[in-house]
Amino acid sequence: MDTKIDRTLIAQTATMSGEKVVIEGWVDTKRDHGKLTFIDLRDRTGKVQCVGFQKMGELTVESVVRISGLVKDRPTNMVNDQIPTGKIEIDVESYDVLNKASELPIKLDTDGLEINEETRLAYRYVDLRRSRMQKNIRLRSKYMQALRAALLKRDFVEIETPILTKATMEGARDFIVPSRFQPGKFYALPQSPQQYKQLLMTAGFERYFQFAHCLRDEDLRADRGFDHTQIDLEMSFVERDAVMETIEGVIKEAVVEVGGKLKDKDFPVFTYKDAMEKYGADKFDLRTEEEKDQIMTTQYDLVCNGLEAGGGSIRAHRPEILKATYKIMGYSDEEIQKSVGHMLEAFSYGTPPHGGIGMGLDRQVALLAGEKSIKEVMAFPMTSTGRTAVMDAPALITEEQLKEVGLKIA
Amino acid sequence: MDTKIDRTLIAQTATMSGEKVVIEGWVDTKRDHGKLTFIDLRDRTGKVQCVGFQKMGELTVESVVRISGLVKDRPTNMVNDQIPTGKIEIDVESYDVLNKASELPIKLDTDGLEINEETRLAYRYVDLRRSRMQKNIRLRSKYMQALRAALLKRDFVEIETPILTKATMEGARDFIVPSRFQPGKFYALPQSPQQYKQLLMTAGFERYFQFAHCLRDEDLRADRGFDHTQIDLEMSFVERDAVMETIEGVIKEAVVEVGGKLKDKDFPVFTYKDAMEKYGADKFDLRTEEEKDQIMTTQYDLVCNGLEAGGGSIRAHRPEILKATYKIMGYSDEEIQKSVGHMLEAFSYGTPPHGGIGMGLDRQVALLAGEKSIKEVMAFPMTSTGRTAVMDAPALITEEQLKEVGLKIA
Repeated sequence: MDTKIDRTLIAQTATMSGEKVVIEGWVDTKRDHGKLTFIDLRDRTGKVQCVGFQKMGELTVESVVRISGLVKDRPTNMVNDQIPTGKIEIDVESYDVLNKASELPIKLDTDGLEINEETRLAYRYVDLRRSRMQKNIRLRSKYMQALRAALLKRDFVEIETPILTKATMEGARDFIVPSRFQPGKFYALPQSPQQYKQLLMTAGFERYFQFAHCLRDEDLRADRGFDHTQIDLEMSFVERDAVMETIEGVIKEAVVEVGGKLKDKDFPVFTYKDAMEKYGADKFDLRTEEEKDQIMTTQYDLVCNGLEAGGGSIRAHRPEILKATYKIMGYSDEEIQKSVGHMLEAFSYGTPPHGGIGMGLDRQVALLAGEKSIKEVMAFPMTSTGRTAVMDAPALITEEQLKEVGLKIA
Repeated sequence: MDTKIDRTLIAQTATMSGEKVVIEGWVDTKRDHGKLTFIDLRDRTGKVQCVGFQKMGELTVESVVRISGLVKDRPTNMVNDQIPTGKIEIDVESYDVLNKASELPIKLDTDGLEINEETRLAYRYVDLRRSRMQKNIRLRSKYMQALRAALLKRDFVEIETPILTKATMEGARDFIVPSRFQPGKFYALPQSPQQYKQLLMTAGFERYFQFAHCLRDEDLRADRGFDHTQIDLEMSFVERDAVMETIEGVIKEAVVEVGGKLKDKDFPVFTYKDAMEKYGADKFDLRTEEEKDQIMTTQYDLVCNGLEAGGGSIRAHRPEILKATYKIMGYSDEEIQKSVGHMLEAFSYGTPPHGGIGMGLDRQVALLAGEKSIKEVMAFPMTSTGRTAVMDAPALITEEQLKEVGLKIA
């Protein structure tokens, strides 16, 4: 019904010499050459040079523009071999400014690492236009899908677990969420789906995975926010080696799928004792670049380039063993009942032997991307001071909101 | 190193007559026939009849057992045509009880809908063993992956947005999360990733999607908890029809992939006016089971079997239009600045025209599964009283926890 020409993606223009096109995107660069204005227009697929008359000089860098024009071969001496569209240019017939850009608050022509973190994250929506950040976030999406494909192929089921849950006794501090229906009582945000995934083994799913948001109220470090994503998986009827083999297979397939490099055909396996003796640490770097050893425990860590990339174990699936473990850790019967009573009960209704792992997705993607900080592979990470990217939180709330949940500022 | 026979999945035994196998799973049913005990063993792939001596009578229903035995053809008169393993049975040589089951708190041989909700969800890990629930949760996983495949094929990028964010002015009540580093200040849990996904359009990703956990502190109804999953997507350089076509294409592909039924080859499109005149409602059921009309707005809803399955719009991407919209809604300049100031600023740095949709995943899966309640397609939904499944939350917290975040019970 509409006579307008459909949008052509910029990468497609490379082979469209002689055709009329409409392209849309951001003004990447602008050069005024007397009567002619040269613009590089950028969309998600690439950049292309557009040549127009003087008036186009009004366009500001990073403005969003729709350009109608003819794709033409460039004169031989003007061909740019560095970019896919370097043999052609767009002869601009008309253009519309879809959104005019004011001067940007941060620079985009560097890697951005020199910019103060608070400023970079306040303007994350501009910072993410950087080609490095575009590449990182797109790599993360591809890697997630490659991991999923490898897991689904192995009969894993993706299952979501709740965000509002109960405080756990172990690990880090919980974030708490006041209940409006039961003032004075609180939910907790999940530090990991540990209990739920074990309950899914009780429920008979046998193989579960999830990309889980894990929230921990820990003291912040430069490279760590409160919220991280875990590749969380659990398997039934397995012993340690089966879990380790599965993890190795899944990671290898996914890394290869996204073009990542593996030093070893097979992951080398070290005992804790070996690692401490050979490397003085249980997180060691094999790159400065192999031997198998005896089983000493049912716990295992995945270590990559000297950084912990995941940790898991074969769990206690018999109630009496689970209870004994907590007793050894120093908990009283009452404390045990309160925090894992539901697990002890669940394990009395037919729970298979099971084990699994939780792996830091952010860290794995950072390693694949060659980034030092996990924040470089997250769209909207927190600042080191706990401020949310772009949005100004935490923030004050109204008296009414506090009253609704039965709380007062102390 | 280990001489034990690897586990055989139960479905595989159907064609293994004459072979020795080790199978593992749950005791589905048990029948004592004098000197012989008959057990149906169940794993994620199916059930098989196992015949053993009297001693096996000690096994309780739903116990987890490992059985070693010989796969044998059943006598012709004992063949069961109703199940894939009905031509064979396992002649038990030995067995190990991996986890003994006490008497179950809820029945598993019905559809479970007759059981009181609080009880069903308290024992969700047993309830999920029900074949209906296994099918539903596995269908959900398959449908999610089918949607993802359809979106990734169309060049969408999966991007995660934060769980700890800022309170929004619109929509339902926010869940609030006290900050320990800034006592008296609060994060909010996301009601949807609405602002973040629009900022991702500013950031140049052009096509974004995510399965997003949305948390709303609303009054509970039988069919609604606080936490639901949204198939959230946003597209740049599009008008209304392009978004609607994309959604239609994605949903169709995913529904067909999981074996769902579509009444119409093309989704019928109704204006609000038409729907109200013809059906007296804007959520109508076409099953009792088509005409296109003129554009009256840039908003659109996806309606399925009389239920709203999603809603979206083409957004205001120019700061002056966005500001004017809020003014018409009655907000003061100060309120506008406080709640969407960051959006107004973002839209001044080159934001493309964009639009998208948020669709209720739970509802779509429930419709595909033929379930009335979305809780039937969620692993761990909340009870109608806001209690978490299995775990006893919301719960009291310690004085120390409250003090750390600078709060008192009012």
